Amino acid sequence: MKENSVGLVKPKTFHVDEPLHTVSGSVIPAYDLVYETYGQLNADKSNAILICHALSGNHHVAGYYDGDEKPGWWEHYVGPGKPIDTNRFFVVGVNNLGGCHGSTGPASINPETGRPWGPDFPIITVKDWVVSQDKLREHLGIEQWAAVVGGSLGGMQVIQWAIDRPDRLRHAVVIAAAPRLSAQNIAFNEVARTAIMSDPDFHGGRYLEHGVIPKRGLALARMLGHLTYLSDDLMGKKFGRELRDRLKYNFDVEFQVESYLRYQGEKFATRSKFDANTYLLMTKALDYFDPAAEYDHDLSKAFARVQAGFLVVSFTSDWRFSPERSEEIVRALLDNDKNVSYAEIESQHGHDAFLLPNPFYEGVFSAYMDRVAREVGA
Amino acid sequence: MKENSVGLVKPKTFHVDEPLHTVSGSVIPAYDLVYETYGQLNADKSNAILICHALSGNHHVAGYYDGDEKPGWWEHYVGPGKPIDTNRFFVVGVNNLGGCHGSTGPASINPETGRPWGPDFPIITVKDWVVSQDKLREHLGIEQWAAVVGGSLGGMQVIQWAIDRPDRLRHAVVIAAAPRLSAQNIAFNEVARTAIMSDPDFHGGRYLEHGVIPKRGLALARMLGHLTYLSDDLMGKKFGRELRDRLKYNFDVEFQVESYLRYQGEKFATRSKFDANTYLLMTKALDYFDPAAEYDHDLSKAFARVQAGFLVVSFTSDWRFSPERSEEIVRALLDNDKNVSYAEIESQHGHDAFLLPNPFYEGVFSAYMDRVAREVGA
Repeated sequence: MKENSVGLVKPKTFHVDEPLHTVSGSVIPAYDLVYETYGQLNADKSNAILICHALSGNHHVAGYYDGDEKPGWWEHYVGPGKPIDTNRFFVVGVNNLGGCHGSTGPASINPETGRPWGPDFPIITVKDWVVSQDKLREHLGIEQWAAVVGGSLGGMQVIQWAIDRPDRLRHAVVIAAAPRLSAQNIAFNEVARTAIMSDPDFHGGRYLEHGVIPKRGLALARMLGHLTYLSDDLMGKKFGRELRDRLKYNFDVEFQVESYLRYQGEKFATRSKFDANTYLLMTKALDYFDPAAEYDHDLSKAFARVQAGFLVVSFTSDWRFSPERSEEIVRALLDNDKNVSYAEIESQHGHDAFLLPNPFYEGVFSAYMDRVAREVGA
Repeated sequence: MKENSVGLVKPKTFHVDEPLHTVSGSVIPAYDLVYETYGQLNADKSNAILICHALSGNHHVAGYYDGDEKPGWWEHYVGPGKPIDTNRFFVVGVNNLGGCHGSTGPASINPETGRPWGPDFPIITVKDWVVSQDKLREHLGIEQWAAVVGGSLGGMQVIQWAIDRPDRLRHAVVIAAAPRLSAQNIAFNEVARTAIMSDPDFHGGRYLEHGVIPKRGLALARMLGHLTYLSDDLMGKKFGRELRDRLKYNFDVEFQVESYLRYQGEKFATRSKFDANTYLLMTKALDYFDPAAEYDHDLSKAFARVQAGFLVVSFTSDWRFSPERSEEIVRALLDNDKNVSYAEIESQHGHDAFLLPNPFYEGVFSAYMDRVAREVGA
């Protein structure tokens, strides 16, 4: 176990015993949210940070589970002395509603039927997540988050928090995100969904009741995801045209890049036990995210009542959510004379860069969070 | 029927009654090549143009089949008064070996077994295609092509022609191609192949004997292909976030871009009857293409003995084979003081641009082909 880690952690469960009326028009009568916390909440409860996760993430942001060698997904950035410094902040990670790591989702039992929700689980939007995460905030007795922080789909939740609950967060840290998906982004999601839904083991989403999982579709979706998270450059540097063995002139894996992608796909579909219906829901939440839509499709209008200070971060080689997309966010904030810092970080790691070590990114992130800590007396 | 078309056309079959020893180490004892010709071969047989097709293309380059409303795939560029002017040139389109439109391929009967070749069809490389196309050249009594022309995978065949048969072509027109695939390119191909091969209806490639086709996998492969042929910009302009109807909050098609991709996928997998094993073979030919490999991985060395004059064309928004990739070809030719013209065409149509009308592209292409025609007295 590394020394600058929050160390051993355990998830907790918060049961929300009131209905959630989703944007999609459904009602979830009650639900669980699984979450983790690191660091200490200070006396005036001003040092709390909410971390929102991306497509395949969860509440296990940092630290280790007993007997598990692998730390949480943002171990590089959350811990003692790290950009989100758990010596100063009380950090909350939460598994989103609709997820598959403990929070109520498609694999949970629908109390009305006694069967897994499966495909009947309501479509969840980023707005719904903000509502449910706000219940957790109340439950923890936090008046205002010192910051809400997230990358990718997590960053979209941060944006929605700032718009829908302007007084509930002091700062918004939006990393490698976009104010809405492009047609190409939606198209990639649609190919992934079609891969899952056309897998004969999908059974219209009722695979659990059939005792199977749509492994092939899930693996394909993940392969495609990985492909878009990495930059062309990095793939070239990492794999080039290197062969795994020698040219065999058959359809086995020959190039290293093939081997890598197949491994990632299979690992995700089998070992990680990621729920296929959750994958579908998360991609839909991405597609639907469009906070400007409620404000005459004008992002500047959407940001008019925002109170949070913003840090917006993008990465040069991220072609999924390119720096141009982050700049749309920055411009719309500046249109409203909001307080915004923006950093475009040089990186060859594509969209994945938001998860990976990078001294300049760490520096920018630490400096901003240090300012947040000082503001809240942490 | 349009006036500036070659009009009604009919394919012919050339039976090659000698074995082809493939680069992959297999032997194809004999094979058919289906081809079409337009225009008249002149007296000294100096005005012949060979057009090489891309992944899903074939020999039906221009004109119409009786009763068919849809012209050949390059109707915009091949015909009377068009850049490849059939009033001046004798144009040959050929379906590649391993294809599924009449030339011997995986769906043909393997004379040794009496069953379709299926997955036993040898892996075919671009070099093998040049060998087989050269047999057709001999058969047609053509000493030297006035030009060999192709886009995408077709352009790669042109490059290989220029290297392997330097005296057999006067000009080489290489459009929207690359001297070899990048790791990202290979990765996209690998996802497409995995989609096909993991379809339960694939049956290890013996689907024909099972009376099925791997429709789902083929549709996915095509959706992914289309996604990479279009630019992000164009998809944005063409579809944006436009809804097909209204937000339904379910997994039906909601956005126009989803509808478009699903339609393309289904059309390819069902109506076009494209053979899945051919799709696999073609993507492998792309992956393996690397003419520099035989020359110490030095493209300049590979081009040392080239005699053809080159026209190289790229398109600004093509992210599959970007202008930078074409420039690699141009640089390696210039290293050898070869005759090369290069045009980077402004277009928002991505990789597909090589098929679509574009006045500047047409102008450049026509001017070059006019020069070729004058050189050969056509």
